[in-house]
Amino acid sequence: MKVKFEVCWRLVVNKVLRMGMVGGGRDAFIGAVHRTAACMDHRARLVAGALSSTPEKSKASGRDLGLDDRRNYERWEDMLEGELLLGEDERIDFVCIVTPNHAHYPVAKAFASAGINVICDKPLVHTSEQARELVQIVKKTGVVFAVTYNYSGYPMVKHAREMVSSGAIGDVRKVIVEYNQGWLASALEKSGQKQADWRTDPARSGLGGAIGDIGSHAEQLVSYITGLSLESICADLTTFVPGRRLDDDANVLLRFKARNGIEARGVLIASQIEVGHENDLRIRVFGTKGTLEWHQEDPNVLMHRPDGGPEQFFRRGNGYLCDAAKRATRLPPGHPEAFFEAFANVYRNAYDAIEARPLGKADVGGIGLHGGYDYPDVFDGARGVHFIERVVESSRSDRKWTPASFPL
Amino acid sequence: MKVKFEVCWRLVVNKVLRMGMVGGGRDAFIGAVHRTAACMDHRARLVAGALSSTPEKSKASGRDLGLDDRRNYERWEDMLEGELLLGEDERIDFVCIVTPNHAHYPVAKAFASAGINVICDKPLVHTSEQARELVQIVKKTGVVFAVTYNYSGYPMVKHAREMVSSGAIGDVRKVIVEYNQGWLASALEKSGQKQADWRTDPARSGLGGAIGDIGSHAEQLVSYITGLSLESICADLTTFVPGRRLDDDANVLLRFKARNGIEARGVLIASQIEVGHENDLRIRVFGTKGTLEWHQEDPNVLMHRPDGGPEQFFRRGNGYLCDAAKRATRLPPGHPEAFFEAFANVYRNAYDAIEARPLGKADVGGIGLHGGYDYPDVFDGARGVHFIERVVESSRSDRKWTPASFPL
Amino acid sequence: MKVKFEVCWRLVVNKVLRMGMVGGGRDAFIGAVHRTAACMDHRARLVAGALSSTPEKSKASGRDLGLDDRRNYERWEDMLEGELLLGEDERIDFVCIVTPNHAHYPVAKAFASAGINVICDKPLVHTSEQARELVQIVKKTGVVFAVTYNYSGYPMVKHAREMVSSGAIGDVRKVIVEYNQGWLASALEKSGQKQADWRTDPARSGLGGAIGDIGSHAEQLVSYITGLSLESICADLTTFVPGRRLDDDANVLLRFKARNGIEARGVLIASQIEVGHENDLRIRVFGTKGTLEWHQEDPNVLMHRPDGGPEQFFRRGNGYLCDAAKRATRLPPGHPEAFFEAFANVYRNAYDAIEARPLGKADVGGIGLHGGYDYPDVFDGARGVHFIERVVESSRSDRKWTPASFPL
Amino acid sequence: MKVKFEVCWRLVVNKVLRMGMVGGGRDAFIGAVHRTAACMDHRARLVAGALSSTPEKSKASGRDLGLDDRRNYERWEDMLEGELLLGEDERIDFVCIVTPNHAHYPVAKAFASAGINVICDKPLVHTSEQARELVQIVKKTGVVFAVTYNYSGYPMVKHAREMVSSGAIGDVRKVIVEYNQGWLASALEKSGQKQADWRTDPARSGLGGAIGDIGSHAEQLVSYITGLSLESICADLTTFVPGRRLDDDANVLLRFKARNGIEARGVLIASQIEVGHENDLRIRVFGTKGTLEWHQEDPNVLMHRPDGGPEQFFRRGNGYLCDAAKRATRLPPGHPEAFFEAFANVYRNAYDAIEARPLGKADVGGIGLHGGYDYPDVFDGARGVHFIERVVESSRSDRKWTPASFPL
Repeated sequence: MKVKFEVCWRLVVNKVLRMGMVGGGRDAFIGAVHRTAACMDHRARLVAGALSSTPEKSKASGRDLGLDDRRNYERWEDMLEGELLLGEDERIDFVCIVTPNHAHYPVAKAFASAGINVICDKPLVHTSEQARELVQIVKKTGVVFAVTYNYSGYPMVKHAREMVSSGAIGDVRKVIVEYNQGWLASALEKSGQKQADWRTDPARSGLGGAIGDIGSHAEQLVSYITGLSLESICADLTTFVPGRRLDDDANVLLRFKARNGIEARGVLIASQIEVGHENDLRIRVFGTKGTLEWHQEDPNVLMHRPDGGPEQFFRRGNGYLCDAAKRATRLPPGHPEAFFEAFANVYRNAYDAIEARPLGKADVGGIGLHGGYDYPDVFDGARGVHFIERVVESSRSDRKWTPASFPL
Repeated sequence: MKVKFEVCWRLVVNKVLRMGMVGGGRDAFIGAVHRTAACMDHRARLVAGALSSTPEKSKASGRDLGLDDRRNYERWEDMLEGELLLGEDERIDFVCIVTPNHAHYPVAKAFASAGINVICDKPLVHTSEQARELVQIVKKTGVVFAVTYNYSGYPMVKHAREMVSSGAIGDVRKVIVEYNQGWLASALEKSGQKQADWRTDPARSGLGGAIGDIGSHAEQLVSYITGLSLESICADLTTFVPGRRLDDDANVLLRFKARNGIEARGVLIASQIEVGHENDLRIRVFGTKGTLEWHQEDPNVLMHRPDGGPEQFFRRGNGYLCDAAKRATRLPPGHPEAFFEAFANVYRNAYDAIEARPLGKADVGGIGLHGGYDYPDVFDGARGVHFIERVVESSRSDRKWTPASFPL
Repeated sequence: MKVKFEVCWRLVVNKVLRMGMVGGGRDAFIGAVHRTAACMDHRARLVAGALSSTPEKSKASGRDLGLDDRRNYERWEDMLEGELLLGEDERIDFVCIVTPNHAHYPVAKAFASAGINVICDKPLVHTSEQARELVQIVKKTGVVFAVTYNYSGYPMVKHAREMVSSGAIGDVRKVIVEYNQGWLASALEKSGQKQADWRTDPARSGLGGAIGDIGSHAEQLVSYITGLSLESICADLTTFVPGRRLDDDANVLLRFKARNGIEARGVLIASQIEVGHENDLRIRVFGTKGTLEWHQEDPNVLMHRPDGGPEQFFRRGNGYLCDAAKRATRLPPGHPEAFFEAFANVYRNAYDAIEARPLGKADVGGIGLHGGYDYPDVFDGARGVHFIERVVESSRSDRKWTPASFPL
Repeated sequence: MKVKFEVCWRLVVNKVLRMGMVGGGRDAFIGAVHRTAACMDHRARLVAGALSSTPEKSKASGRDLGLDDRRNYERWEDMLEGELLLGEDERIDFVCIVTPNHAHYPVAKAFASAGINVICDKPLVHTSEQARELVQIVKKTGVVFAVTYNYSGYPMVKHAREMVSSGAIGDVRKVIVEYNQGWLASALEKSGQKQADWRTDPARSGLGGAIGDIGSHAEQLVSYITGLSLESICADLTTFVPGRRLDDDANVLLRFKARNGIEARGVLIASQIEVGHENDLRIRVFGTKGTLEWHQEDPNVLMHRPDGGPEQFFRRGNGYLCDAAKRATRLPPGHPEAFFEAFANVYRNAYDAIEARPLGKADVGGIGLHGGYDYPDVFDGARGVHFIERVVESSRSDRKWTPASFPL
């Protein structure tokens, strides 16, 4: 009970941001997740949407959600145009993009160029070229551009990051990150299941199958917690399910750039054919003085194995955690928090940045530093796209090590 | 990915209920939990409040939350009066009572008598007399009256209930329920911590300390999952922290009424001095054919040990679960849900009942059957109050077994 | 790898003790366990036996084990007589009694009276009178008399004991001990299963069913770890399986004598009808400054929850453990040890006492202090018998609290 | 309690084999482990030894263990000569080789050539040439030659093997095997710690550091459980501790030969710098219909995730397990077995083969089929040596995939 609950409370004091949404209509899964997360702290309200690529479905979905008919748009282009006609006191404060991957690029580009803040699902776009273009736009316009790598929103992930950066586990030597799923172990896409359908379609999903859909989360988690930069990789992508056009299993050896004289090594495993595994993202970070381990399916715990022992279990909500972990917490210890709250934490921190902009409190142009705010931004998104490209290239190559240094 | 996500989606279609709140102002903890849970599915919106027993604090708290000044009341009596003056299309659809325990009774009585639906925190009231009166009022007015025994909102608890009632574990022989906490292991109330302060004060908390605050949750969980009725109990309440006026540790032997010829036995442990335990509510149900085990701190799993084995782990979100568990689910397997979602499920089911009332779809007077809706109601609340009274009586008695049959 | 492996090694240096065994013939289970444990460190060898109550079976069992025909006795009385005729350099150094409970008393009495060391299974005897008599004999003859409460042989149990006695968790307020089994959930004794047969027969098993067979282990574990003495108890014994003549489920409230001004409370659960539970002995000890938890089925770990956290997992074999835990260890960390090794630790410590006797190094008459050696002795056995009697008396009584102070 | 305990009992009936030992003297660790395991079932007795490479230490060690002076040899060459002079009724039945790796080859070659059965620690020898020579000798002499890959002695590993071979999890698509240790995270070898000293010395340990010491166990576990054959590998070996001459961290991508049209993939991780990890060998096998998972540090459990769920936990000792698992079991469910028992199971099965030889019951020349007995033999040892060589070669290569097919 040592956590300061006031944190949660005070968020309510601020103004309610106006949210627009592109994608996320009837039959979509992730749209409802975004809406729940975005509004969890009562800091935003959905006021406009172009919820489907099909105009009729778009309208019907908006009616389901009680959108004002004027702002229940048939197409996202209409929404951009319509919102820009509104006054600053009425216009959406940000757009949330939750379409299949292929549509992220044009929508994000258009809204960001128009000076509207963007919260976009991952992976950001299909190609590094597109990603670089978005980065330039963000640099130029200064909009807040968050990418919903939601797993870095968990409080215990934030505590892990703090422990690494503070040197609590010494220098990092090795990272093992896994994202184990089994839901695509058979040809679910042939059954008409919508999530499976677009995720296994290169036109909508991009170059990567499992490596894109979940491997990109794994890469971001490593980057977020350790701060290490990749030097080179060696990947083995496989498609196990006959007829599938993208990889459904990825095993990758990682080599990181030297830090404090140590060239860390790593293993990244991302699979969607591991029967019985649900959403088993997990990471282990091995330092010279200690080891950290965290599992997404048991997110309120962070295991720490200090040299000489004994093993420790840090638990969310306790007073001994770092400030970033405390700020990401809404409930006392033992009252478990989970997926929605972590997702909401990405929104919460992006809202802080959005609200700070007009007040000039933060240099949001300071991309890469996230303008001082703790949310994954367009740079993280771009690095993720680059990673997927390099993994796919490595898998096709006979060369052992493929350079994977992120150029931005 | 077999869960039907449409369930979640469709909830949005319905109208948005107008919520009033009594208690839950600045410095309160549980008020924010209720607000988050109540609005998680976008089916309710806070429109009125009397958020504190201190008028100035009440107003200030309402301003924090953006309440319209006209409906930001200084006192709950004003709120009742003011809302009744409004038209049915504007008036609150229900009041949420989140004050310390002693204030539940007058508020609940007044609003229920006026025909306004009530969602009230637990334990319901201080005495069985008060509880009986509320039951009579509910029977007479037909209002929906939910008591937020939030732990029965967990999907895996619902699946456990279904497994017992369907006979999957045979006849129940024994129940062990524990609610292990450690936050009151020292005299936290002397530090000014607000939660500790009122919970250890008989005037505000009632007869029971640990047995009232958390033992009542344990009793309700047993009742909800097993459907068993208590016959008699043997309790040992202790106050370990010097100077404290209520029990902080409770150990109770349970005997249940015969069902199918078996008189089940049980053990109930509720403690707030078990250092290092956070919010460790757990239950084991032993049947003639199998055993169930569930832990609140790891809520997405239900353990099942069928006779002859092997042990099984049921996980939230999977297609093999019962309908009640599926309906209580918002996310796919492996995307953990937790405390807020369970809390929101109590609200969700109460909303179904509230919305059904004007349509005459359900006989909400059919108390005890919950009008067909799956939420803890005023009867459950009354039974909880009766249980606390019997435990306290037993603990003071030299007689081994104290009758504990609930008379309603 | 910080454990000193020499400990294990050096034991081999000593002489090999000559073991005799009563009981444990063909079809017996526990006899083979004793033989394996007794010889694990190569410090004893079986040289004589009266392995069954049936002379022919006794002989046949001895031949199976390769006993010399002269020392393969038909009856234990023959064995006592025969061994006493042998010179001190040939005679057995100790007798191991592994018969059903009812035969412990005459055998133990006869051998101890004759000055032969005894290692006897638990519960010691059927009545406190018998137990007192054995205590007197041990006091008079000075023999080593160990009772195989094997669970106190686990290294992590020894570390728990050390943490309590050193004050690491402050003063003990509460103990929860459970021994959960399910193998007698149906009438296995009617199937001819030998273990079930005698354990459910009062003539061979004694007053207690589950409370005697496994509840006595639980009582000893509490005593061993905490050093607390019982003041009074309140028991509810039940026989769930129709036709069974002894309890198969026991739930007991415990009150301990004051220590440092604190009257600790406790709950003891022992059941053999909890379907799917195998041999789930577990204990939690709650102190004013921390909590300990240990599970027999995961014996290499001791959980510690210090006030203020974080939770710690102590693991067998590590350098940070106490000496008693280290001495009870044969393998490095991560190389799990289990049931046999714990059992062997009781033997090992009794061997130290036996070997010390002729050298006059220890006052083995110093019963209660175990002569300075860490093994459960005849006093522990007597206290266990007394406990079973008091629980059975309490269960039959209408009085809430039955005195349970051990008079010796 | 459904396990047949007679299995354990009947082992005693057979004759006691005479064991000789090379290595394992004072200060050795693994020698004591072998002696305990070899004698656990009372089927063998140590009668001869050349326990150290230093003659004086060899003699002193033998005296510690009570060896007859005539058979307490100064050098292994003396032991071979001396034993061959003895009659067949006195001579050792087998020699146990527990020296550092470099001495395995000459000792094993000499004893096997002389027709004496061999039980040898792993990795077998330093080079594939040496291994091939031993295989030829075994083929020619027909001796039993066991290699103590002790982890395949665990009952639940045997059940996993059975589930794969019976098709219970469908066709294997992927294997992840890890052997996580942390004890060499710093330069322990510089402290004089004997185990660290020889393991990090190429002259005594061979080509591989972590990959040889523990990676070879991981490889054997994959082979034992899945029966899959490697096609090619891609390895990244690292030496993190400055000054160390062998790898202390190994990450390897695996490709297996097609079986039923599926080319399985795998990841092998073996590390001794993962701080806080003790002896964490674990394996996951992903099939088209289910997944298996087993952890050496929690060895009594095998997790099974069938397609469609729910997850199952198989536990040692239960009647639902396969015969091989039951035969490898000494205790009922819930009475945990661990490292020693698994080790003893390798000995037990080798003893069956040794005892069968003179009776002509088995064609022990049928190497590869283990003569029908379930223990790792010289072929497994040779495959392990080949694997280490290929991994080291791959790690030094720029080529992505190094062929790893085992030629024998």
